[in-house]
Amino acid sequence: MRNLTMMTDLYELTMMYGYFKGNTHNKTAVYDVFFRQQPGTSGYAIMCGLDQVIDLINNLHFSDDDIDYLRSLDLFDEDFLAYLSEFRFTGEIYAVPEGTVVFPMEPLIRVKAKLAEAQLIETAMLNIINHQTLIATKASRVCYAAKGGPVLEFGLRRAQGPDAGIYGARAAVIGGCASTSNVLAGQMFGVALSGTHAHSWVMSFPKEIDAFRAYADIYPDACLLLVDTYDTLRSGVPNAIEVFKELRANGHEPLGIRLDSGDLAYLSKMARTMLDEAGFPNAKICVSGDLDELIMNDLLGQGAKIDSWGVGTKLITSENCPALGGVYKMSAVEVDGKVEPRIKLSDNQVKITNPGYKKIVRLYDRDCGKAIADLIMLDEETIDENEPLTIFDPNMTWRRMTVTNFKVRELLVPIFENGMQVYESPSVLEIRDYCRKDLDTFWDEYKRFSMPHIYKVDLSDGLYALKQEMIQTISRNKRVKNV
Amino acid sequence: MRNLTMMTDLYELTMMYGYFKGNTHNKTAVYDVFFRQQPGTSGYAIMCGLDQVIDLINNLHFSDDDIDYLRSLDLFDEDFLAYLSEFRFTGEIYAVPEGTVVFPMEPLIRVKAKLAEAQLIETAMLNIINHQTLIATKASRVCYAAKGGPVLEFGLRRAQGPDAGIYGARAAVIGGCASTSNVLAGQMFGVALSGTHAHSWVMSFPKEIDAFRAYADIYPDACLLLVDTYDTLRSGVPNAIEVFKELRANGHEPLGIRLDSGDLAYLSKMARTMLDEAGFPNAKICVSGDLDELIMNDLLGQGAKIDSWGVGTKLITSENCPALGGVYKMSAVEVDGKVEPRIKLSDNQVKITNPGYKKIVRLYDRDCGKAIADLIMLDEETIDENEPLTIFDPNMTWRRMTVTNFKVRELLVPIFENGMQVYESPSVLEIRDYCRKDLDTFWDEYKRFSMPHIYKVDLSDGLYALKQEMIQTISRNKRVKNV
Repeated sequence: MRNLTMMTDLYELTMMYGYFKGNTHNKTAVYDVFFRQQPGTSGYAIMCGLDQVIDLINNLHFSDDDIDYLRSLDLFDEDFLAYLSEFRFTGEIYAVPEGTVVFPMEPLIRVKAKLAEAQLIETAMLNIINHQTLIATKASRVCYAAKGGPVLEFGLRRAQGPDAGIYGARAAVIGGCASTSNVLAGQMFGVALSGTHAHSWVMSFPKEIDAFRAYADIYPDACLLLVDTYDTLRSGVPNAIEVFKELRANGHEPLGIRLDSGDLAYLSKMARTMLDEAGFPNAKICVSGDLDELIMNDLLGQGAKIDSWGVGTKLITSENCPALGGVYKMSAVEVDGKVEPRIKLSDNQVKITNPGYKKIVRLYDRDCGKAIADLIMLDEETIDENEPLTIFDPNMTWRRMTVTNFKVRELLVPIFENGMQVYESPSVLEIRDYCRKDLDTFWDEYKRFSMPHIYKVDLSDGLYALKQEMIQTISRNKRVKNV
Repeated sequence: MRNLTMMTDLYELTMMYGYFKGNTHNKTAVYDVFFRQQPGTSGYAIMCGLDQVIDLINNLHFSDDDIDYLRSLDLFDEDFLAYLSEFRFTGEIYAVPEGTVVFPMEPLIRVKAKLAEAQLIETAMLNIINHQTLIATKASRVCYAAKGGPVLEFGLRRAQGPDAGIYGARAAVIGGCASTSNVLAGQMFGVALSGTHAHSWVMSFPKEIDAFRAYADIYPDACLLLVDTYDTLRSGVPNAIEVFKELRANGHEPLGIRLDSGDLAYLSKMARTMLDEAGFPNAKICVSGDLDELIMNDLLGQGAKIDSWGVGTKLITSENCPALGGVYKMSAVEVDGKVEPRIKLSDNQVKITNPGYKKIVRLYDRDCGKAIADLIMLDEETIDENEPLTIFDPNMTWRRMTVTNFKVRELLVPIFENGMQVYESPSVLEIRDYCRKDLDTFWDEYKRFSMPHIYKVDLSDGLYALKQEMIQTISRNKRVKNV
């Protein structure tokens, strides 16, 4: 397993050194991973990447080579390097399980650990969660657009490096993709593979039909032919039909054809007619080529005859929004032996953090099972399911709603206790199943491609009161002295 | 070193199997890596990623576990699996050196190898080159916008997975960045690191000034303070100045301050005035926060007082264009013992490939040393530097230019011969130097952020004639029979 301990911003190490020299490195601190905005125009996100964070934490240590390199930077003394060489993560981590539908401001991962330990893991953890959550979310939207047709993840060649291809494929499958073209991802995560042949296969033969025949010979029961190398409707589809007839004469049924260029609405309708008239109504039409959820939605809206979708570049890079802005903010720190809440102010309301050791509670309607709202709460707060609950928008506090007949679910679950892993990740396919079921608890209105209905994420009474009090105290102090 | 052999699209393996079963797998084939469009609005791209392609080729082999996994797919017979278990790359690879300025349609990598070998390496090679070329290009633009001020690569936490952070940092430095925050990239590639402290450092202390003092204590000669945790101008900068004065009293000079939020034009001018008036005209102002080349250009245009730039998300993801569409197309294949050119047609003119075994020649003005135009040529064609040369636009052939007083340079250099590496990559810092010099041979007009002047990439007479002849032959054949 790869050790990503050194994959950290330098300032995590210089800060750790500062804590170490000030002898505060063993103080308890609490940090939250959260994002402030959904990726792009999405109404939700899909939590993803936790299993790789678990690997990161379990492998957290500095090798002798690492220590030598850090020594060469002339930034740290030998005491600190000796401390690093013994470094292990000994803290507590709670997280939202992978595949869960999540929203802005929710603590997706909550770390409670010694200050220096909590600091070190920031960068790598954000890198992993930001990436996989972004791609799982994009995949979820793409699969929603496919209206049940299988989506095949085809993006490896355009992914931002090997890991983006590998873990992007993982996230894409969690978000709903049926398979990936990435053989290594299939091997690593036990997910289905797909892929047939490229234009170069056709070009390596003197004639297109020779290429099709050769392919049908070796995969008579998995024959899906790429028909757009020379001319889709005048050459590719007629040649494919001829080979399909030969296949059938030998007792095999073809899988179908793939269209990779041209107008996919027009070509798919024409190809469907040609295939049907030739006696192949069960031959599938797979399409690919710069697809995303908006184009797919548009194509189906125009009656395109498409059975499955190969989606590459725009899915594997989340092209319309290639970064999720997840952050890691301190919410509490030990002062004189007591863990006190912390807040970061900003002129920008959305950048003010939520203080304290918190949890997330999701309210479900007891009758229909659909999610009603989420509440971010202080950990010690409780909700009585048998009493009406009034919730309110933390920015527009006059927007209130009283909920009855609900049940509650806590989203954060223990992952590490005292540095020991206490959680076993499900398989990627299990996470995909869970994700689909979790998405089913949300109304379609939250899943619209643009201008989705905004799901309520409110603050509990206790958290709201604490936050207001802290904002006022700091603002008051600023007027009289430097804080 | 990581073995990325299995990081391939499944169809490369199914096609290899097809070649193997048809006994064409050992025929010679030629493929080109090229892109059709510059990333985003850029007028050029920076070739990057070759060193990782060299690692890929050198490590190309299937382990026993890989063979077992492939067997489990039920797609391949034992003969083929035995062939794979002995598989090595034995072909020839030419490439444009990393850091070179490159343009659409130019063969950045030319592979001449046994058909199955050339096929296998497609996906991983495209993944690597597409990613690093994209990020090096973006970094080059960002550094151009900085007008000489150092650009610090800060994007690890928002990169698309670990490799995107690591190799993205490599590409960013090649494109011109002065340093990276990514410690692992610093260790792997021998590049400078940068980073000081985060808001959480400040928040871990009761008061901002305590945090600043503590930081100054441990790094008295590298004291760069983040001043926007609570209130930049009323708290951060005054506290920083107080600590800078204490530093100076102890015989040290501060590095400066970092602004990470708010209006960077206004805040940098105000902070500059405050620092100057307090006697710290040499204290630098570093800024960060959602920067890209357009914002940087705008800030400097408004007289912002900024010395260095921490650029994260938008650089490490190439946010305005997160994928380079590099492709890998067959340009020739062996038929009856002779390597014949191949072409892929398309209704879209730009998608018609350039056939044959080709090279790239760059013409330079002998007097000013600036690049004039590139020519894509058949390998056997030559140019006489002592004769006037007439070149023409391959799409608008009436656009002609006669060049005199020029010298020529061939861009493709040998990387592998008979499967053996014959090229040693320079270090990342050497490549950065070379890239800067290569960029200097291009007029500024090609480097504009939007609507750049289009650099000429023409086809030689021989290549143009071959291409036209092949297009006409195929079009003629389509009318009378399936091809």
